[in-house]
Amino acid sequence: MGNDTDLPKNLGQPVAGNGLLDRRFFLQAGAGAAGVALAANVAHAESIGSMAPATMLKPGGAFTGYGMPSHWRENVQRVLVTNAPPARAVTGSSRTPLQMLDGMITPSGLHYVRNHNGTPDIDPNTHTLTIFGMVKQPLTFSVDALMRYPMTSEIRFMECAGNSGASNAPMPPQVTAADIHGLLSCSEWTGVKLSTLLDEAGLDPKATWLLAEGADAVGMSRSVPVWKAMDDAMIALYQNGEPIRPEQGFPMRLLLPGFEGNTNVKWLRKLKVTDTPTYTRDETSRYTELQADGKARQFMLQMEPKSVILKPSFGMNMQGPGYYEISGVAWSGLGRVKQVDISADGGKSWTAAALSGPVLPKAVTRFRLPWMWSGEPVVLMSRTTDEKGKVQQTHAVWAAQYAPRQNFHFSAIQSWAIGADGKVSNIYV
Amino acid sequence: MGNDTDLPKNLGQPVAGNGLLDRRFFLQAGAGAAGVALAANVAHAESIGSMAPATMLKPGGAFTGYGMPSHWRENVQRVLVTNAPPARAVTGSSRTPLQMLDGMITPSGLHYVRNHNGTPDIDPNTHTLTIFGMVKQPLTFSVDALMRYPMTSEIRFMECAGNSGASNAPMPPQVTAADIHGLLSCSEWTGVKLSTLLDEAGLDPKATWLLAEGADAVGMSRSVPVWKAMDDAMIALYQNGEPIRPEQGFPMRLLLPGFEGNTNVKWLRKLKVTDTPTYTRDETSRYTELQADGKARQFMLQMEPKSVILKPSFGMNMQGPGYYEISGVAWSGLGRVKQVDISADGGKSWTAAALSGPVLPKAVTRFRLPWMWSGEPVVLMSRTTDEKGKVQQTHAVWAAQYAPRQNFHFSAIQSWAIGADGKVSNIYV
Repeated sequence: MGNDTDLPKNLGQPVAGNGLLDRRFFLQAGAGAAGVALAANVAHAESIGSMAPATMLKPGGAFTGYGMPSHWRENVQRVLVTNAPPARAVTGSSRTPLQMLDGMITPSGLHYVRNHNGTPDIDPNTHTLTIFGMVKQPLTFSVDALMRYPMTSEIRFMECAGNSGASNAPMPPQVTAADIHGLLSCSEWTGVKLSTLLDEAGLDPKATWLLAEGADAVGMSRSVPVWKAMDDAMIALYQNGEPIRPEQGFPMRLLLPGFEGNTNVKWLRKLKVTDTPTYTRDETSRYTELQADGKARQFMLQMEPKSVILKPSFGMNMQGPGYYEISGVAWSGLGRVKQVDISADGGKSWTAAALSGPVLPKAVTRFRLPWMWSGEPVVLMSRTTDEKGKVQQTHAVWAAQYAPRQNFHFSAIQSWAIGADGKVSNIYV
Repeated sequence: MGNDTDLPKNLGQPVAGNGLLDRRFFLQAGAGAAGVALAANVAHAESIGSMAPATMLKPGGAFTGYGMPSHWRENVQRVLVTNAPPARAVTGSSRTPLQMLDGMITPSGLHYVRNHNGTPDIDPNTHTLTIFGMVKQPLTFSVDALMRYPMTSEIRFMECAGNSGASNAPMPPQVTAADIHGLLSCSEWTGVKLSTLLDEAGLDPKATWLLAEGADAVGMSRSVPVWKAMDDAMIALYQNGEPIRPEQGFPMRLLLPGFEGNTNVKWLRKLKVTDTPTYTRDETSRYTELQADGKARQFMLQMEPKSVILKPSFGMNMQGPGYYEISGVAWSGLGRVKQVDISADGGKSWTAAALSGPVLPKAVTRFRLPWMWSGEPVVLMSRTTDEKGKVQQTHAVWAAQYAPRQNFHFSAIQSWAIGADGKVSNIYV
């Protein structure tokens, strides 16, 4: 956020078109009094404070071993997208309800799931991970054995290669942010660095790839470059503090921070060290990039810088002119988010949002910007620049590179149009 | 972790008594081959890799709207400590099973709960927060109104003032780390800075305290200094990304980072601005510090630097001599953890552990240290130093300051003795 100690005199003046305010507005004393007041009821406050609500008149509920969300928020659920349920309710995805959440962490119960043949129920007492192929000493690890290895903890995002693919439809789909971008989540992952295990097995100097395979009913298999395995790859055993859940790979998954989700093989059972990619079904029939000239690029594994405004977004109705906070999430598979710029005039003018909380490499970063909406129609956009200098592209620039309906690795700017009636719609800019 | 680019030649040599290794051991190539190998089965690895487990032979489970932990880990539950259940199962606590977890985040379902009369079921459509007393303009906020204010997200620990009080018993209790220290958790909290709301209400310059009251059946009430309210206090609306849960204060709680848990009033309904503490029951009959001379100190609100080794800890049995990772959590209500020192010889020699993940102010910090156990009896200890230079004290030094059974704000070093039989016991050093 730069040096905020010497604030300009009047941060209440718009810094970009259609009412965007300086990100440091609320660091200025008196900001609350300067027209941002939203308190719904300022009359009789003292007497309201003295009235005891019903919950104060009788004991509340008892303790539980494992807590759950409020029944008043039971609508905060993942969006289920499956192929012809119930027959194929094991193939498809469930998406994180991004626009209902805030912060950077996704609760594990709402982490997106992309399954190709259901969530297996794996006995951790018999499951093993085997490393073999081009190694000096093949190794087999029980879960208990892995638990004794040195661990590391990292907050990292996970994103499906097919996330936001709906944005490459000919017409902008009028659906929620979750429906379009909800194959994105972020957790604290704890586990054993893969380099520790490969070091023990002893890599053949000619080894360049690993084949990772899961114990689900499709035997999900992906090729992973050795450089990534020896860099920041992890065998994840915990998610957000607790043992990793079945839908995320219990008892263990491969974690490749910043790589497309599908390569982060769940229910990991083997790693075969090779000197060539294996060209499995899931890296040939899927997850490639079909370009405008008809050629497909393979093994484009790092997810590009990206962002989406969640508040406001499709499905929300503005409550009249006045103060709003624009808020959303940004991320890059290449490293840290360096800056998120916001436009309220369809890209004509931009200003930098504040980044909330720790800004970590390959993690979701929450951005926020104060905004005074006049009530006139506007177009909101967000644009991420990462620490490598890569910048999120416009929809038109992105689309021109690829064949029609090339739905993988979509990373262009999401634009939301807000009408004079306060309705938010999805548009291409 | 300092400058790790120029590693000493042989990090396999112990750096402190009883086999403690340098925290950078695993940054050295070949560490795995140097005696740390734990792979349980290295024969026939290739054939194991080719055998399909039962889970690969049939489709797995279907998608769910809200995911849950594995039934294989259903023992990962909070420890319930209530007064004479079921009659008073609403008064007491449930504790985070610290030794079963890893990382810095506590999943919300396992966050500790300290209730004085149960968890109320609050309708967010009628709940309000009222600010009144010594303000220019009393204000009442609905949940929907607060949702439109500017938000901030912070990862912060929460610790009950009574946490670890069992360690002040005459004899060291032979119970788990969760039983002793489990009134500690850490979440990402998102909400509205309290200073934003007080700024809008307009504080009387003579105001020095606030009375915060909850909507539970005891009307939990605590006095909070204005300096803290205007510093980093928050009205928390989200926890770990999703709407805050009933057990943590749905629809909103007061968050006072680093202050004793009880002051972080859940189900917050009013804030009365005053020029004196209110001296409520819960800050006079409880939560004070009874000193050795018989005088009690009030309003000692900031939690001191602290730590506990979780792996190994009571209830675990060592699996024979060899490599282990010592791992645990450290925190301070005063700011960042600066260093965690580990001793394996009862405090005679110490070495600094590695700190895992982002080290954030007033957040749980995970520490780790490689260790080669000879199989002889040892005493493990951890000691936190925070960024203010405050150092965690020994049990003897801590206890000498206070009256017997002064169970609040216990922050002394936890020592675990490991016998030649591999059993871990709790001792006072």
